[in-house]
Amino acid sequence: MLSNNKIKFIKSLDNKKTRDESGQFIIEGDKVVREFINAGWNINLLVAQTKWRKTLPEHALQNIEEIICVEYNELKKISSLRTPHNVLAIVEKPEFLINWNEILNNLTLVLETIQDPGNLGTIIRTAAWFGISNIICSPDSVDVFNQKVVQASMGAILRVKVHYNNLFDFMNRISESNFPVYGTYLDGKPVYDCDLSTNGIILLGNESAGISSSLEKYITQKIKIPCFSDITEGIDSLNVSMATAIICSEFRRKTRGYSK
Amino acid sequence: MLSNNKIKFIKSLDNKKTRDESGQFIIEGDKVVREFINAGWNINLLVAQTKWRKTLPEHALQNIEEIICVEYNELKKISSLRTPHNVLAIVEKPEFLINWNEILNNLTLVLETIQDPGNLGTIIRTAAWFGISNIICSPDSVDVFNQKVVQASMGAILRVKVHYNNLFDFMNRISESNFPVYGTYLDGKPVYDCDLSTNGIILLGNESAGISSSLEKYITQKIKIPCFSDITEGIDSLNVSMATAIICSEFRRKTRGYSK
Repeated sequence: MLSNNKIKFIKSLDNKKTRDESGQFIIEGDKVVREFINAGWNINLLVAQTKWRKTLPEHALQNIEEIICVEYNELKKISSLRTPHNVLAIVEKPEFLINWNEILNNLTLVLETIQDPGNLGTIIRTAAWFGISNIICSPDSVDVFNQKVVQASMGAILRVKVHYNNLFDFMNRISESNFPVYGTYLDGKPVYDCDLSTNGIILLGNESAGISSSLEKYITQKIKIPCFSDITEGIDSLNVSMATAIICSEFRRKTRGYSK
Repeated sequence: MLSNNKIKFIKSLDNKKTRDESGQFIIEGDKVVREFINAGWNINLLVAQTKWRKTLPEHALQNIEEIICVEYNELKKISSLRTPHNVLAIVEKPEFLINWNEILNNLTLVLETIQDPGNLGTIIRTAAWFGISNIICSPDSVDVFNQKVVQASMGAILRVKVHYNNLFDFMNRISESNFPVYGTYLDGKPVYDCDLSTNGIILLGNESAGISSSLEKYITQKIKIPCFSDITEGIDSLNVSMATAIICSEFRRKTRGYSK
């Protein structure tokens, strides 16, 4: 059974402040929790229905500090989901340093002020699919350890390092290396017609405001995804996560041996 | 002020059954409501904060049956959003017949059992961007007039006709016309390497189960989006709305004069 103190602590992890101070965050659901366990992450607390607990292999226990078996209605009390899964866990936030060598040898996404947790989650999932290992977010972006982000990323936060960094500091360092920086603009060149590089930075702006003008000087190629609608009135933009998916796909298509 | 009956009715439109029986649904937010008004849709009831009401041009009134001005806290009572917008409206569900001529002269998306409202909403928004005017959903898909779908589509349901149809009936009719049908499969041909047609059907399966085997016989070309990750373990798929965006982009790129 869960103590009131535990319930209180788990619920408090809904707040970014508590997550930052405690260095912990919540993951939920069979698939995601198993992935974290298999990846060897330290689980501070695992709260599961007894039937789920029974399916956990012996070797998984070595990285789990505490396990509490509960009934469904107890799980419901602590879950952020309308229909809770059969397991929830508290894990420790990882800390990554930027590996510049890695950045200069791959594509990296730079996100300015992305607000919607679902967008960040699906962008991380897309990055994982396209073999992108680093995402740099401006400090005012939604927190990657927000449960909705974790949920939407479907475990991809295990494979993509999400850093929070002052974008000017980051871009200043990048510009010293003469590294290509692509940014999405309404007046950009159709991405299909662009020469895209194997490695580089793809800068994506806020859901409504786009890329802020102060970052424009770092862009070496403005790109856009052309609109194919006859009625353009009222269609201002693609969702930022859709745009990310299409652009990542174009980069890989052009630089990994697909020519058609 | 809103009567209790009105509040009750507005809230009841959260249920698909009430939406179906009354033939009405809810839209929320300045941008979406204005788009519906500008598109000439009939608004049965408009509930707005007084300051928003004042911004409404005179000519807009002809299609609005009833306007009720309220305070923010009243709007909060009826809104499905955590932070309600300053306007909410009840509109009449449109009824579309399938126009076969239109289907045979464009790309059409066929969605099997899409469950997540956010996914359907962003797929509709993506379809609008790529000039796709029809989406066929299996009857067990999430309802397009679910508020989360309407919200995520950002007004694109004004430009894309979403039909609910038995997919076998639809595909039988399509197969009579010898029309190309593309379906996403893990063992499909990389979409980048495929000859894609200007017009055709793109079939997308359920979020977890994919395309059901009974629909496979209708597919004329299996396609996939290749995974570019070194660590493929644990990455099973792209989100279905991401996949849709990438595939639509590929079709338009290849058939609208982009050659690189």
